[in-house]
Amino acid sequence: MSGRIAVGVLGATGMVGQEFLVQLVDHPWFELTWIGASERSAGKRYRDATSWRLPAPRPAEVANMVVDTVSPGHAPKLVFSGLDASVAGEVETAFAKAGHIVVSNARNHRMDPVVPLIIPEINADHLRLLPAQGASKGWSGRIVTNPNCSTVVLAMAVAPLRQFGLQQIIVSTLQAVSGAGYPGVASLDIVGNVVPVVQGEEQKIETETKKILGHATNEGVEPHAVTVSASTTRVPIINGHTEIVTVSLESDPGPAALIAALRSFSGRPQEIGLPSAPPQPLIYFDEADRPQPRLDVDRSRGMAVCIGRLRACPVLDYKFVAMGHNTVRGAAGAAVLNAELLRIDGALD
Amino acid sequence: MSGRIAVGVLGATGMVGQEFLVQLVDHPWFELTWIGASERSAGKRYRDATSWRLPAPRPAEVANMVVDTVSPGHAPKLVFSGLDASVAGEVETAFAKAGHIVVSNARNHRMDPVVPLIIPEINADHLRLLPAQGASKGWSGRIVTNPNCSTVVLAMAVAPLRQFGLQQIIVSTLQAVSGAGYPGVASLDIVGNVVPVVQGEEQKIETETKKILGHATNEGVEPHAVTVSASTTRVPIINGHTEIVTVSLESDPGPAALIAALRSFSGRPQEIGLPSAPPQPLIYFDEADRPQPRLDVDRSRGMAVCIGRLRACPVLDYKFVAMGHNTVRGAAGAAVLNAELLRIDGALD
Amino acid sequence: MSGRIAVGVLGATGMVGQEFLVQLVDHPWFELTWIGASERSAGKRYRDATSWRLPAPRPAEVANMVVDTVSPGHAPKLVFSGLDASVAGEVETAFAKAGHIVVSNARNHRMDPVVPLIIPEINADHLRLLPAQGASKGWSGRIVTNPNCSTVVLAMAVAPLRQFGLQQIIVSTLQAVSGAGYPGVASLDIVGNVVPVVQGEEQKIETETKKILGHATNEGVEPHAVTVSASTTRVPIINGHTEIVTVSLESDPGPAALIAALRSFSGRPQEIGLPSAPPQPLIYFDEADRPQPRLDVDRSRGMAVCIGRLRACPVLDYKFVAMGHNTVRGAAGAAVLNAELLRIDGALD
Amino acid sequence: MSGRIAVGVLGATGMVGQEFLVQLVDHPWFELTWIGASERSAGKRYRDATSWRLPAPRPAEVANMVVDTVSPGHAPKLVFSGLDASVAGEVETAFAKAGHIVVSNARNHRMDPVVPLIIPEINADHLRLLPAQGASKGWSGRIVTNPNCSTVVLAMAVAPLRQFGLQQIIVSTLQAVSGAGYPGVASLDIVGNVVPVVQGEEQKIETETKKILGHATNEGVEPHAVTVSASTTRVPIINGHTEIVTVSLESDPGPAALIAALRSFSGRPQEIGLPSAPPQPLIYFDEADRPQPRLDVDRSRGMAVCIGRLRACPVLDYKFVAMGHNTVRGAAGAAVLNAELLRIDGALD
Repeated sequence: MSGRIAVGVLGATGMVGQEFLVQLVDHPWFELTWIGASERSAGKRYRDATSWRLPAPRPAEVANMVVDTVSPGHAPKLVFSGLDASVAGEVETAFAKAGHIVVSNARNHRMDPVVPLIIPEINADHLRLLPAQGASKGWSGRIVTNPNCSTVVLAMAVAPLRQFGLQQIIVSTLQAVSGAGYPGVASLDIVGNVVPVVQGEEQKIETETKKILGHATNEGVEPHAVTVSASTTRVPIINGHTEIVTVSLESDPGPAALIAALRSFSGRPQEIGLPSAPPQPLIYFDEADRPQPRLDVDRSRGMAVCIGRLRACPVLDYKFVAMGHNTVRGAAGAAVLNAELLRIDGALD
Repeated sequence: MSGRIAVGVLGATGMVGQEFLVQLVDHPWFELTWIGASERSAGKRYRDATSWRLPAPRPAEVANMVVDTVSPGHAPKLVFSGLDASVAGEVETAFAKAGHIVVSNARNHRMDPVVPLIIPEINADHLRLLPAQGASKGWSGRIVTNPNCSTVVLAMAVAPLRQFGLQQIIVSTLQAVSGAGYPGVASLDIVGNVVPVVQGEEQKIETETKKILGHATNEGVEPHAVTVSASTTRVPIINGHTEIVTVSLESDPGPAALIAALRSFSGRPQEIGLPSAPPQPLIYFDEADRPQPRLDVDRSRGMAVCIGRLRACPVLDYKFVAMGHNTVRGAAGAAVLNAELLRIDGALD
Repeated sequence: MSGRIAVGVLGATGMVGQEFLVQLVDHPWFELTWIGASERSAGKRYRDATSWRLPAPRPAEVANMVVDTVSPGHAPKLVFSGLDASVAGEVETAFAKAGHIVVSNARNHRMDPVVPLIIPEINADHLRLLPAQGASKGWSGRIVTNPNCSTVVLAMAVAPLRQFGLQQIIVSTLQAVSGAGYPGVASLDIVGNVVPVVQGEEQKIETETKKILGHATNEGVEPHAVTVSASTTRVPIINGHTEIVTVSLESDPGPAALIAALRSFSGRPQEIGLPSAPPQPLIYFDEADRPQPRLDVDRSRGMAVCIGRLRACPVLDYKFVAMGHNTVRGAAGAAVLNAELLRIDGALD
Repeated sequence: MSGRIAVGVLGATGMVGQEFLVQLVDHPWFELTWIGASERSAGKRYRDATSWRLPAPRPAEVANMVVDTVSPGHAPKLVFSGLDASVAGEVETAFAKAGHIVVSNARNHRMDPVVPLIIPEINADHLRLLPAQGASKGWSGRIVTNPNCSTVVLAMAVAPLRQFGLQQIIVSTLQAVSGAGYPGVASLDIVGNVVPVVQGEEQKIETETKKILGHATNEGVEPHAVTVSASTTRVPIINGHTEIVTVSLESDPGPAALIAALRSFSGRPQEIGLPSAPPQPLIYFDEADRPQPRLDVDRSRGMAVCIGRLRACPVLDYKFVAMGHNTVRGAAGAAVLNAELLRIDGALD
């Protein structure tokens, strides 16, 4: 295993943490050497500290690893954070102060002006914020974040539309329960039901999207001018957020050109061949009834966003459906792709 | 039972037909005396012709009724139609020609210029089309229709907004499987899944809504000027269509006035006390996570439309969530309410 | 409201507590005058203390009632207990000591030799234990219990088979999520899944059934000699426990006689006309694919147990399917029926 | 691709046919060269003839293959049959007469005395029936079958118990909807519901299990003496049949020895290294709440049967839970494994 970079996972026992472990098994560049979790788990072997909830088997190599506390004493330089927002803010700051590169899925630092909020296919260049982050925070380490799971699907789907003057977005989401962690959504609330809100996520979609699509300088990010209106719902499925997207554009290239733009969308991960990069970030379906979570959520190992049904909208300009894997492309897979990008473009020694 | 009006049900063995039977049991004004269905069922006792799929028990009084063919020989003057669209057009015309009053849930005649498309709380006055219908068609009977199940929920929710200059609607639906009849949606398509389209329904929502909200003269209906854009999805629940509605208005009365307008909305059924009329057609919830199908679909015996989450939209003006029972308020209950209205306002001898 | 007996509900904010409130609204004999819950809720109005999770609306009359602590100071003599097992044991004992009649759904006292474990159709005579309970415990009040939700369905289904020499029972359950309370089962564990165990319930079914079917003297209960083997599973439905029951009998009356025995089964509640008694405790379906939770769980307002598919078993003697409403017949409705029985047969003051 | 054996699939457009295509993509020994389906599909390209319903993408190489009729003119010698039972009997016989080796998932020929009903881990030696099949039928080809999807799970789970004198089995199944094909189970029947029967499957489980576990001579199969009693149910999940199994044994080795026997169970496919063979046919879980379909159905690419919760039964001797993938181990994967076995042990030129 020589040559692989040692990495750690903060919050390794939670749902995002478990997904991190799955993503990191047999990773060609990273080797998991350290796991941290709350006081309740610290000191136990991972197998004893965790109720494993993923279909992918618990990686054999972590079963006997001893869980450390979430303090930066023994962790490797590069750590992934799947921490809950209730603690992620302080812990991640402590790690950055102590010199760690924190690649975080938590919401706490996403909107900080000098913290990059990255989807590598869209805004790999936002890593240019990192020097300013060190300077302004006085940290020897850094924090890099990925967006909320619903934001990832939306931002990737609309990124290719910027060239046509993306002005407005109205999005309605149908979100899977895995996005809420474990135990998360009570079964009494969702079996045979729809819950017409996912608390707190509408604001994230409306603000994070603008930052991701925005223009970064060395000091900060000028948010994209697009106006975003989000309505969220929870539906009784395990994985896959479906989003009904309606947009207005300054120019109308026609549906064929829009679909071509979606299909040909590609970015830095594809250019430099990052290990977790989907060959085609956006998969457009010609079938009238796609994408569907059950059939399409695992395309490109959960890293592609699936799109279909693009057609004219009589109120705004176009509408379509986007769907992506909320715990892979929308969480752990997103962070791993960010870390891969950092290794190449991060100018980190 | 003297004094009750004899009624029949066309398509009595299907899902809408079954719901008609449940709605008509113990109805104070109507007495079911005749049932018709396809050749396959004709001549059999209802109990033998039907695979009963509703939780409400099959009414004891229909169990031994013999199913007739769907031809107008022996049917009473007033018939409800739960026929499939593949046959409803011709059969309903034949009944109207033969002098029957056909109160139909089928889509076939809804957009005919001289056929009223009625939600009694909104446009009871559209019955004024009936004389023109007789004259132009040369029928001694008449056809009156109710909207598509998704349209009912939307049209009722936006009807009170007309006073503020309703201009545009973008609606995303999350529809229950019962709307597709039986066998309808295959379980392999919907268990643990979302299907991002309900074939054919978007156009119905976009056109029917304008007719219902429009202005009727003696000759036809001037559609309302509102522009409607619909996106439909199917979700794995049994009953209750949830709709995410975004609207633009000419004037902005503020959210409190809008909610007050929803709560005070009332119409002809409430005014004249129709038996199936919900006391309050629109129920607005202050709770942040309502309405929910599992909790709210049966409010006012399934005849109310439930609304919640009204708030400003940064793209259009306001957004909110509406939910209603698709086979009651959206189908059989809608037709029964129409028939009740006809009895009072129909000027039918 | 004069003439109705004042009652209270312990644990009124939980799921069983909520169901109690629904069962007690408009009850002809009982009037809810007091509600108690944990310290967290005490002192608040019920509407503020409770996240209401039932489709039946929260009764208007309780909305503004102030929640008391679960101590016997101000409660009426008759109290229903929907307390969680973690606290029910001590609290119910305190109330019994203080002179209250506690009609409990909690498991804690069920297997106490001098506490009646009652299904009124089966063993109303077990109330004869009450004097011994007072004597041996030194309580001025009393505790009466109903069984676990899975036990109720099984015990009712096999009670009529005792006359044929009931010897062995193998039962497999498919249990709804509402049986676990709120938040209860995590949606990640059950959406699109089966969990092959309901922790702790197999032992309850195996022991409670024998006590219920047993013979009571003034001092205790001789358990029925039947041997019971239970396997439990959780399935993704809201209400209704389905149970696959296989039995061996000393004598074989043939399937027709067995079905007749099920259909004609009746007990003390039917004899004396208790308000919550289903007219027919066991509903046997001739259809090959019934009972089904979605279609049948609300029969007789959720108080009947539904049975179908009785046929010979090549290993034991007969097998069949039973299904009942786990939070009504299996919990709150069961307790209310017990309280009704107590009023008539309880020989209390 | 030289060196691979050409194979065809009968019924290639159905659900089992689709699963066959997925199993055969990149198969090291077999190369799909021909597909047949009903008249409705014949002559069309596969992509146009099929509504693809699997998450695994439709193999690119079949998209443009032209569907043939299900007659033996142009098919390769080895054909897999995923035909519906309504036509499988005659079609498979026609292919066998015409010299084809038919490896069938259909039920029609399973119980024919000279047709092997194979689970290679259990009864690979039943292939010795093949010469007698040719002689008695006068076919130049042969038919080999795999069991019903529920039978596979049960037979594999109890096969290691034969050494302890397996005498009786009572099994309750909780079956996924994919077992019924497409459209199969109507969503209205199963969303939020349990259906207490899978028509026709109980008899298959009770008879097929005895044949599979039986002793084959050159002329036929002496069924195993075990008595089997099956009760089936359908639950709202996509893949994975869960089975509650209770058994009686002549000798009692104790639970530890039974679990060891399950874990060490292995057979001909493991011995000779068949490509589709799971390394360990039975996976026993120590966790108290496993196996679960959502977490465990894809173990060993869906070819392992998962077992848990083995414990004493107070009525018979032991009870446990078994779960397996009904369309892989229970259908297409089972047939492919049979074909692999045939290539090695089939004595077919």
